[in-house]
Amino acid sequence: MKNDPLWLADQVTYQIFPDRFAIGKSHTSESKLALPIYQNHGCTRRRWDEMPENPSRGKDFFGGDLPGIIDHLDYIQDLGVTALYLTPIFIAPSNHKYDTTDFFTVDPQFGGEKALKQLIRELKRRKMRLILDAVLNHVSDSHPWFQAARRGEKPYKDFFTFLKSGEYECWRGHRHMPELNLSNVALQKLLYRGKKSVLQKYLEMGIDGWRFDVAVDVGLRTVGEMRKAIQQRFPDAVLLGEVMCYAGDWCNNDQVFHGVMNYYFRDAVLGWLGGEVSARQMNHAGEYHDGYSHAGAIRSWNMLSSHDTPRLRWTIEDTAQRRLAVIAQFTLPGVPFLYYGEEIGMNGGHDPDCRRPMIWDEKRWDRETLEFYKRIIEIRQTHPALRRGKLTVLGQRLDGDALVFLRHTDKINEVALVAINNATQPLRQIVFTPHSHLYHALPMKNLLEPSQVVNMEAGNLKLDIPPRSAAIFVPDDTRLPNYKFFKPRNLD
Amino acid sequence: MKNDPLWLADQVTYQIFPDRFAIGKSHTSESKLALPIYQNHGCTRRRWDEMPENPSRGKDFFGGDLPGIIDHLDYIQDLGVTALYLTPIFIAPSNHKYDTTDFFTVDPQFGGEKALKQLIRELKRRKMRLILDAVLNHVSDSHPWFQAARRGEKPYKDFFTFLKSGEYECWRGHRHMPELNLSNVALQKLLYRGKKSVLQKYLEMGIDGWRFDVAVDVGLRTVGEMRKAIQQRFPDAVLLGEVMCYAGDWCNNDQVFHGVMNYYFRDAVLGWLGGEVSARQMNHAGEYHDGYSHAGAIRSWNMLSSHDTPRLRWTIEDTAQRRLAVIAQFTLPGVPFLYYGEEIGMNGGHDPDCRRPMIWDEKRWDRETLEFYKRIIEIRQTHPALRRGKLTVLGQRLDGDALVFLRHTDKINEVALVAINNATQPLRQIVFTPHSHLYHALPMKNLLEPSQVVNMEAGNLKLDIPPRSAAIFVPDDTRLPNYKFFKPRNLD
Repeated sequence: MKNDPLWLADQVTYQIFPDRFAIGKSHTSESKLALPIYQNHGCTRRRWDEMPENPSRGKDFFGGDLPGIIDHLDYIQDLGVTALYLTPIFIAPSNHKYDTTDFFTVDPQFGGEKALKQLIRELKRRKMRLILDAVLNHVSDSHPWFQAARRGEKPYKDFFTFLKSGEYECWRGHRHMPELNLSNVALQKLLYRGKKSVLQKYLEMGIDGWRFDVAVDVGLRTVGEMRKAIQQRFPDAVLLGEVMCYAGDWCNNDQVFHGVMNYYFRDAVLGWLGGEVSARQMNHAGEYHDGYSHAGAIRSWNMLSSHDTPRLRWTIEDTAQRRLAVIAQFTLPGVPFLYYGEEIGMNGGHDPDCRRPMIWDEKRWDRETLEFYKRIIEIRQTHPALRRGKLTVLGQRLDGDALVFLRHTDKINEVALVAINNATQPLRQIVFTPHSHLYHALPMKNLLEPSQVVNMEAGNLKLDIPPRSAAIFVPDDTRLPNYKFFKPRNLD
Repeated sequence: MKNDPLWLADQVTYQIFPDRFAIGKSHTSESKLALPIYQNHGCTRRRWDEMPENPSRGKDFFGGDLPGIIDHLDYIQDLGVTALYLTPIFIAPSNHKYDTTDFFTVDPQFGGEKALKQLIRELKRRKMRLILDAVLNHVSDSHPWFQAARRGEKPYKDFFTFLKSGEYECWRGHRHMPELNLSNVALQKLLYRGKKSVLQKYLEMGIDGWRFDVAVDVGLRTVGEMRKAIQQRFPDAVLLGEVMCYAGDWCNNDQVFHGVMNYYFRDAVLGWLGGEVSARQMNHAGEYHDGYSHAGAIRSWNMLSSHDTPRLRWTIEDTAQRRLAVIAQFTLPGVPFLYYGEEIGMNGGHDPDCRRPMIWDEKRWDRETLEFYKRIIEIRQTHPALRRGKLTVLGQRLDGDALVFLRHTDKINEVALVAINNATQPLRQIVFTPHSHLYHALPMKNLLEPSQVVNMEAGNLKLDIPPRSAAIFVPDDTRLPNYKFFKPRNLD
C-alpha cells in the first residue's frame, strides 16, 4: 500500500511550547497559577514577564495552555502559518512534559482533553494542521508503569529493561528517564498497535501526525512497525522524527519517517553564516535532498531554532545575516519551521532562556522582522517550486561566499533560482543553470525586490547580489506583449 | 523504432549565410544585383567590399547565392569540412530570410530550386552533408497565409492565434513575426506531416536534416511529433534545435532533437577565456555531456560564433586564447561548428557586423589561423575519441585556470587527455586519470606538439602546459620495440 501524504511539504509549521505561549482568556496569570495543579512540590510559579530559570529543572510554570493557543489562532493564521506543532501535552510533572506519567490524558495544566478537542475543531475550521509530540522512548521515573515495574508487577516489569546490577536502561544515563522496552508486545499494543493506543487515539481525535522525540533511540525497526500500524487506518497521517544527524536512512523510503527535523540543514546554514562552515561545504550540504529522498527532504522540518536551541537572534547577531538564514529556510527543500516568537524577533539563549514566554505587548515587537516573515511565507506559499521543487545546487561551482541553487518541479514554468550572498562584497558572477526551461531572454524577477528583473542569457544568469543579501529569481512571463515564453505546447 | 543516426557526431560543420558567402560565377556583383528580384521597395544593394548596416533592417543585399557556394566547395572541402548548414533559403523579403513568405520555394535570389538540387548533387558526390534551416514558429506578416488570416479566411485564420484584443500572438512581441498555431492539424500537414510538407519535401530532395529556429518556441511536443513523422520515412535524417539555453530535455531521449546548437558550451568557453566565468564553473559546464545524454551531446553543434553573435576575433582579442577556444570546440563533446570566414580570421561585431561578406582576396587571409584550423580539423577527424568519446572532466579537481578532461570510447586505445591552460602561468600539476586503460609507462603524445611525449605514471600524468596553451595527449603505442601496451587480448 502506497502511503505518501505530500501535504506536509506545503505547510509552514509553527512550534509552540504550551506553557509559554499564552494563557486562555478565562484566566489571568494569577488565577491560572493559583489552581491546585500548580501547587505541587518543587513548583515555581512565574509572572508572564519573568524569565525562565534553569535551577528549577523544568519546574517553573508560567501557566500557558491550549485555550491560550486557541485565542491566538487568528494571529498565527495571519502570519501565513498552516500547521502547528506542540511539544508534549500529556500529563507530566515538568513544564516541558517530556517526562510523561500518563500518555492517555492531556495535562490539566493545558486544559485537558476538552481543550485539545476544541483546538482540533478550531484548526480544522481554518484548514490548519496539528502535529503532536510522541515521547515513546522513555517515561518519567514517577510513571505508574515504572513504579509498578520496580515492584516487579506484571506486565509492567517487562515494559523496561532491568539489568543484573539492579539498575535499568535509562535515556543517556539519566536515571529519572527509564527507557521503555519497545520490543515488548503488550507495550506496543498500548503505544501504537491498538485502536486505543496512544498514537491511534489522538489520530482518531483528529490530529494530523506525530513528531517523535529522540527518534534514533526509538529505532528504525520500531518506527517501521509504527508506520505500518498507523498508515493502514490513517493513510493521510504523517510521522516525523527528531533525528539530530544526517537522516538519510530515516526518511528515504516508504518504511520509516515521512520527514525529520532537519538538523543537517540547520547546522549547515548557521555554521556557514557564522563563519565556521565554508561556502563550498554549505553548498554540498544540499546533499540531504538526494540522501533523504526528494519526498523525505521536502517533508522535513527546516528548523533554525526550537525549544532545544538558542533563538536565531541569539545565534546570529547581524540582522541581514538572520534574514539570509530565514531565506535559506524558506527556499531550500523542506518545511519552514518557525519557533513561536521568532517572527517578532524574540531573543533567548540556551534552554531555558529560549523558552521565555511569548511577548504579546505589540510595542515590544520587531515589526520589520514580522513583516519580513509574512512576506517570505507568502512568497513560498505562492510558488510551488519552493515547496515541492527538486534541488540543483549551483553554488559549489562559483567563487565567493554564496549559496546558490535551483528549485524546479516537473512543470516547466515552476522554477526558482535562489542566490544568498553572505559576503561583505557583492556577488557578481555569471551562473550557469543546467535547466532546460530557463530560456534565453526569459525575464527573471527577484521576488525579494520585484522591481529587479534580469533576463536569462543563453542558459546563464548574471548575478549581481549586494553584500549580505539574497535574491529569489522566478520567470516573469508577463512582460512581452502577445507572447509567451512558456507555450502551452511545452507545458504538459 | 530505434532512430539514432550517429553520423552527425563525425562531422565538421560549416555555416553559411548565403547572401554573404559568394556570388555564382555566372554573375558579377553588379549584374546579380541588377536583377529585378533585388529592386523591391526598401532594398539596398551593396558591393562585396562594403559593410552591412543595421538601419537596413535586413534589407541590404550583397547578392550571394547557392551557385556561389557550389563554386567554392573545393575550398570548403579542403578545410576538412564535411557538412554545410545554410541559414534559411526560402522566399522571404529580408536578406536573412527568417521572415518566410513561402516555405515551398527556394528564393530566386539564391538561385531557386534548380540551384539547390545542383548543390545537393555536388555535395553527395563529395560525400558531404547538408542541413537546412526550418523557421516554423512564425512567418513574415506579409506571408499570404497571414494576409488571408487577417481577412478571416479559412483555414488560414486558424493557422495563427488571434487574441480578444484583436492582436495576435507574435514572436517575442514583434508584430511583424506572427507565430504559427502549430496545434492546427491542417497546418501540421503542410509543415511536416504530409509527404509534400516542407520538412519532407526537402528531405526527399536529398538534404540530410533540419536545424530548427527558435526551437523552444516550437516546443517539445511539436518537435516530438515532427521527429515521429520524419524518422519513419527518413531514418537517417537529423533534427537539430536552436535551443539557447541548457538543452537537457531537448535532446536527451529518442523523442525530441538529435542534437542542439550548444550555447551552453559557447557561453562557458567564452566566459571562461574572457575572465567572467571561473575555471571551476567551466569544468562543471561539462555537465551538458550527461544532461544532453551522450548521443545528444556528441551530435550538438559546438559553436563559438554564428550569424547571431560577434565573431570569435571580436569576442577574444588574444590570438593564443582564441586558439584555446577552438581547441575546446574541437575536443569537448559536440560537432565543431565553423561560421564561414572564421577560418581566415574574419572579424565582426554584433549583427549585422558579423555578417560581412566572405573575403575571397587571399592576400587578406590570416594564413596562420587557416593552417591552425586545418590542423585541428585533421586531428579531430583522425581520432575517434574526440568525435564519439565519452567525457570525464578532471579540471575541477585541479588548481589553476585550466580546463582538463578525458575523452574515451569503448575501445581501450581510443582515449585522449586534453589540457587547456588559460593562465599566464604554466600549468604544472599531476593529474589523476580515472581511466582503466591509461597504463603505467604508456607514452602519451601531444598531438599539438608531436615531439612532446610524456609517459603515464601509475594512472597519473604530469602536466607541464605553457601559459595560454594546450595539449591533446593520446597514447602512442609505437615507441617500444616488439611490445604493445594495447594487447589484442585487451582490445576485445
